[in-house]
Amino acid sequence: MHELKTAVFGLLVAAMAVAEAADEGAIKNLTGFVDANRQLALETSLVESLSATELDAWSKRLSAHAHHAGSPYGRENVRFIAELFRSWGYDVVIEAFDILLPVPKERELVLEGPRGYRATLIEDVLEEDASSAERDEVLPPYNAFSKDGNVRGELVFVNYGIPEDYEMLERYGIDVTGKIVIAKYGKSWRGIKPKLAAEHGAIGAIIYSDPADDGYIQGDVYPDGPFKNDSGVQRGSVMDMPLYPGDVLTPGEPAIKGTRRLKVTAAPTISKIPVLPISYRDALPLLKALGGEVVPAGWSGALPITYHIGPGPARVKLRLVFDWQRITIENVIARLEGAIYPDEWVIRGNHHDGWNHGASDPVSGLVALLGEAKGVGMLAAEGARPARTVIYAAWDAEEPGLIGSTEWVEKYRRELDDKAVTYLNTDGNGRGFVFIGGSHTLEGFFNEVMASVTDPQTMVSLAERRRAMLSVTGDEKQRKELENREDLRIAPLGSGSDYTPFLQHLGIASANFGFGGESSHGSYHTLYDTYQHYTRFRDPGFAYAVTLAELTGRTTLRMANARVLPFRFGGLADSLELYLTELEALAQTQRDEAKRNNRLLEENSYGLALDATKSLGAPKALPKVPFFNFAPLKNALAEIEESATALDKALDGGNLDDVDLTVLNRHLYQSERKLTSSEGLPGRDWYRHQVYAPGFYTGYGVKTLPRVREAIEAKLYDEVDHQIAVTAGVLEGFAEHLEATRALIP
Amino acid sequence: MHELKTAVFGLLVAAMAVAEAADEGAIKNLTGFVDANRQLALETSLVESLSATELDAWSKRLSAHAHHAGSPYGRENVRFIAELFRSWGYDVVIEAFDILLPVPKERELVLEGPRGYRATLIEDVLEEDASSAERDEVLPPYNAFSKDGNVRGELVFVNYGIPEDYEMLERYGIDVTGKIVIAKYGKSWRGIKPKLAAEHGAIGAIIYSDPADDGYIQGDVYPDGPFKNDSGVQRGSVMDMPLYPGDVLTPGEPAIKGTRRLKVTAAPTISKIPVLPISYRDALPLLKALGGEVVPAGWSGALPITYHIGPGPARVKLRLVFDWQRITIENVIARLEGAIYPDEWVIRGNHHDGWNHGASDPVSGLVALLGEAKGVGMLAAEGARPARTVIYAAWDAEEPGLIGSTEWVEKYRRELDDKAVTYLNTDGNGRGFVFIGGSHTLEGFFNEVMASVTDPQTMVSLAERRRAMLSVTGDEKQRKELENREDLRIAPLGSGSDYTPFLQHLGIASANFGFGGESSHGSYHTLYDTYQHYTRFRDPGFAYAVTLAELTGRTTLRMANARVLPFRFGGLADSLELYLTELEALAQTQRDEAKRNNRLLEENSYGLALDATKSLGAPKALPKVPFFNFAPLKNALAEIEESATALDKALDGGNLDDVDLTVLNRHLYQSERKLTSSEGLPGRDWYRHQVYAPGFYTGYGVKTLPRVREAIEAKLYDEVDHQIAVTAGVLEGFAEHLEATRALIP
Repeated sequence: MHELKTAVFGLLVAAMAVAEAADEGAIKNLTGFVDANRQLALETSLVESLSATELDAWSKRLSAHAHHAGSPYGRENVRFIAELFRSWGYDVVIEAFDILLPVPKERELVLEGPRGYRATLIEDVLEEDASSAERDEVLPPYNAFSKDGNVRGELVFVNYGIPEDYEMLERYGIDVTGKIVIAKYGKSWRGIKPKLAAEHGAIGAIIYSDPADDGYIQGDVYPDGPFKNDSGVQRGSVMDMPLYPGDVLTPGEPAIKGTRRLKVTAAPTISKIPVLPISYRDALPLLKALGGEVVPAGWSGALPITYHIGPGPARVKLRLVFDWQRITIENVIARLEGAIYPDEWVIRGNHHDGWNHGASDPVSGLVALLGEAKGVGMLAAEGARPARTVIYAAWDAEEPGLIGSTEWVEKYRRELDDKAVTYLNTDGNGRGFVFIGGSHTLEGFFNEVMASVTDPQTMVSLAERRRAMLSVTGDEKQRKELENREDLRIAPLGSGSDYTPFLQHLGIASANFGFGGESSHGSYHTLYDTYQHYTRFRDPGFAYAVTLAELTGRTTLRMANARVLPFRFGGLADSLELYLTELEALAQTQRDEAKRNNRLLEENSYGLALDATKSLGAPKALPKVPFFNFAPLKNALAEIEESATALDKALDGGNLDDVDLTVLNRHLYQSERKLTSSEGLPGRDWYRHQVYAPGFYTGYGVKTLPRVREAIEAKLYDEVDHQIAVTAGVLEGFAEHLEATRALIP
Repeated sequence: MHELKTAVFGLLVAAMAVAEAADEGAIKNLTGFVDANRQLALETSLVESLSATELDAWSKRLSAHAHHAGSPYGRENVRFIAELFRSWGYDVVIEAFDILLPVPKERELVLEGPRGYRATLIEDVLEEDASSAERDEVLPPYNAFSKDGNVRGELVFVNYGIPEDYEMLERYGIDVTGKIVIAKYGKSWRGIKPKLAAEHGAIGAIIYSDPADDGYIQGDVYPDGPFKNDSGVQRGSVMDMPLYPGDVLTPGEPAIKGTRRLKVTAAPTISKIPVLPISYRDALPLLKALGGEVVPAGWSGALPITYHIGPGPARVKLRLVFDWQRITIENVIARLEGAIYPDEWVIRGNHHDGWNHGASDPVSGLVALLGEAKGVGMLAAEGARPARTVIYAAWDAEEPGLIGSTEWVEKYRRELDDKAVTYLNTDGNGRGFVFIGGSHTLEGFFNEVMASVTDPQTMVSLAERRRAMLSVTGDEKQRKELENREDLRIAPLGSGSDYTPFLQHLGIASANFGFGGESSHGSYHTLYDTYQHYTRFRDPGFAYAVTLAELTGRTTLRMANARVLPFRFGGLADSLELYLTELEALAQTQRDEAKRNNRLLEENSYGLALDATKSLGAPKALPKVPFFNFAPLKNALAEIEESATALDKALDGGNLDDVDLTVLNRHLYQSERKLTSSEGLPGRDWYRHQVYAPGFYTGYGVKTLPRVREAIEAKLYDEVDHQIAVTAGVLEGFAEHLEATRALIP
């Protein structure tokens, strides 16, 4: 597909023509550039240098064997990647860290009664995919940072194992204390499931992928189709990343010689109970053996049984023994010194470690990064070295807990705080629609880039295709926004990939780029994330890998070359308004629900409405929800809006000829730092950003204005006014920074 | 449970005390009575005469063997029922009709490729339930009034086989012409499925119960629990009842000697293609053999497979041969001549034919009717003969198409039109919450009765328990209504039981009573609707059968004895307002959808948003929806509201001493006739009611103000203004009738 596109556009077509073809009339100017034509010509060269055939070859090479953190093939990949960067003219270092990484030695799950069943814990070898036959150096299904354990107990089915599920269990009079829970994957990041189970007293946890969510109900299963077959298991970390990511023994500090390390037993991010992921084939006999009440509406999956909650009569034994080894991980860091502003860094990263072969996760994003880096290196060799320093990073040990990126950020925190302009992340990629999550201060910029890139299937711009998708499948709110808002909203980031330490720990404006929606995630973290699966089902022909390279390549080059950095603040102000509205609505919803719930209890409506022959009881009384003082947030937002409007106007229309651009640009990229607070978030000071955080009880899912939102959600009503005030204080500081930036422009 | 209740209340407690205990303070007065105490005392006697033990014995007797229309045991039941009525002092006749009733001779369903499978079409014998072993005289699974057929073709999965499913198939480019469709039970009455399939060109239809809707996903399956096991099949009629019910050969006329009959081949209500219901066990190999695209979201059931649409490669043969026999059906009609107003008839009915043993459907409702009738007979014998004539009817051949009741109504149409005050129906019953559907002119009355009866589980009134249930599980609209509306709304009636000819053909104010919501419908129309299943799962101890007898007994006695009939019109006016609001909203929704759909087509949003590698295409352009002239309906409703308010006030507060009550009562019960039109509904003149009708493309589901609603739904926009005018004309006539009634009161 990409070959077709470049053929159509031709090698000699001028940059403006490309821009017009991509989105007619949308790119008369490029924000931050005086000479848009030169920049667009550079981008065209970069785009033309991209080759699907080359990405394909790299993908095949990098995903030929399992290459998890610490594996032999992972180390080979590191050298291969480093050599590529070197060959393209980069200064390359391999940055090593010495981290704790448990790997499974023994895994045992047995249904001991009323019938017996020993879980196989093995993924099938498929003759259609030779990679699935590789067993040496391949990690079996397990959850990284599960505790060791040898537990026996009655089984309880806890649905997705999220807070509302435990509220429901309480209504059934079911206590999981001393029990082993079995939870479905989904609705929360996996690490939340053992965390909540342990908080409720469970002694072990099993997680499985139900075919209703991730299996034959989605479509044909591998190898007939892309979806999860009955032996497939989603591996993954259960490290308590919402507390802090990275090496569990060195919170906030780099895992290098000289850093004091916690004892393993004192590491707070290791799960409190043993936990094991299994296939739906292994889950079936366990679930079938459960008795007790039939599950409530919405809890059933798609296994051909009646789902029961338990507890028991199913009794299981779960035994896990890990090798708590210290290993060396290796990030590849490739640097191209900036021609004009060497102390302003544009950082672009993707991890290189996979769970197994990792053809999709992370190789599909990694090959796009490599293609981009090759093109940027080529431009530099041809004399068009970027104005700012560009750093390409291939991170190690992302899968067990964002470890490579986190340790690197912790090691270079001072320099990064000073110099990092932006961090641009990719990870697994697939066919479909563009997705950009990130800092709202770059919303307009990302919209400009999305309008510059052509979708390889439809030959309209990425922005236009995304708009079409949202107008067809979006909810009413999204559709209204499409009509009333010029820019597509950039999703706020929670966690789940290597942007986290940059954005949430240091306050570096960040983004995460990818495509999806037309490619199944059924291979995610299984043995079947192979080159064969990827090229058959995720992105045949590497069309979207090339498009991703174009998208991030244009982004990197523009950030690196812009005379004035393309930060704007109106979009942030608008999104903050939205989040404030959501918080007020959330409080009101909880207020209404508490009132209604308590009135129904007083009137004995549950007593009359519920079936007396079943054990489902009434919910608990809810604490009354007071009205909160949102005024400080509103005042702060009003200030941000005012100063943002003035600053954006000055940046877009003002005369910048007499401005010290180094000072102005520094003010612009330092703005995101002003959204952080050195005291961090309540109970987790590693997380410093006051606008975006991963949810403490949702995991990857983002919580915006997290101090306030999580206080309300956790019903800590006494704290809400305080958290509003703290957040408002940070936002006021941000508004002042915008004012100060504005003052730089005459 | 009932024994406990009567023990608590005691035999000597005065009527007022009963009333207060049931719902304190709610029944100081009884609408229509001057001496409420006497009436309540009669009702108390009736209630005290009810015996769960007796109902249990009758149930066991009546459901001991299969007793479908025309069966030997059905004829025995008729004699048994007739004898009971006679023993209680009723004048009993057995009213026979001579109708067409096909029964299956041969049923064959074979998957002929790519793999072979011969459907068993047999329900398992369960050692836990001896009734399931009975095979003589038991009807096998089939759809009554399927055509004969011997067809072969590719199979297509059509989801529920409702109109929107065919729209989706069209988007996939799939035409069912010449194919055999397989549809899930649910979302529409079953007869709609072959009707729509035939309209789209299919040559055969298979219907099955998916376990997602009716099987192991609901709960444990029979005999472990009440739900449908993998061999269970829902039988049922596919006669095109929305056109007309009753004998297919004698539309609008009684099936008696002298009536001209259609040829079988000319009967318009026989299905146009052969159709067969099957179990999910038999459906599994068929669905598994389907290829083509994976089904869209929402189409999958809970069988452990990936659902595909087809067509093919699955090819099936469907062969059905019926014996198109003429049989004699027998209604039992038991009459107790009214002491004061013999020419005002209160009619109370329940069918007696089942599909097999029919312990739930219809015997659970029938034994309640018998208990009630015994009590009313006892009161008469003790000198408290009802003021009006009470007629108890046990209908035959309800299952194949409301045939016994329809033929009887058609035979006695003149007398019924003249004399019928109300028709009160019951059918299958279960444990749970009270449900009353019916004429809105009796809404206040039914609320009064619901407040008089105590729920046997919670010992609060039925009304209070229903309110509690709605306040816990109701949607926002329902909850708001609970707070703002004094009376519980009475659901409008579509079709599905024997009230249809009374209400919709003749305009006799009708109602349908039952309990449910805490008792599975998994046995519905299967071999497992047995005494054993019923007493284990549907209503252990017959507590709700007794409560149903109390509810309908009080209703019958009050209607029979009221000095002034308890019709009121404010509730109707309010519900008509609601329906009008719904119609305007429906038109607006279709207008918005058409606009949005056509805009998305113009902008090529579907072209850009849809996955080009899949066959799902854009929807069709929709016709523009004009604005309609709702003014005539609004004016008519304003008149109804005004006259209803005046009439209700006069009835409740006026001096009726000088009023000729016979004339007034006649005006009151004749009011429902004024909601009908002799020309009927478009294309189906048998249906004369202009407020309630079963949906032409939904079946049992009600369409209120059907002329207008169905014109909008069918996008016959040119007709809407006309249908509004016609409906408004009828409603104006109704308002005039209320005025005339009002004028009777000085």
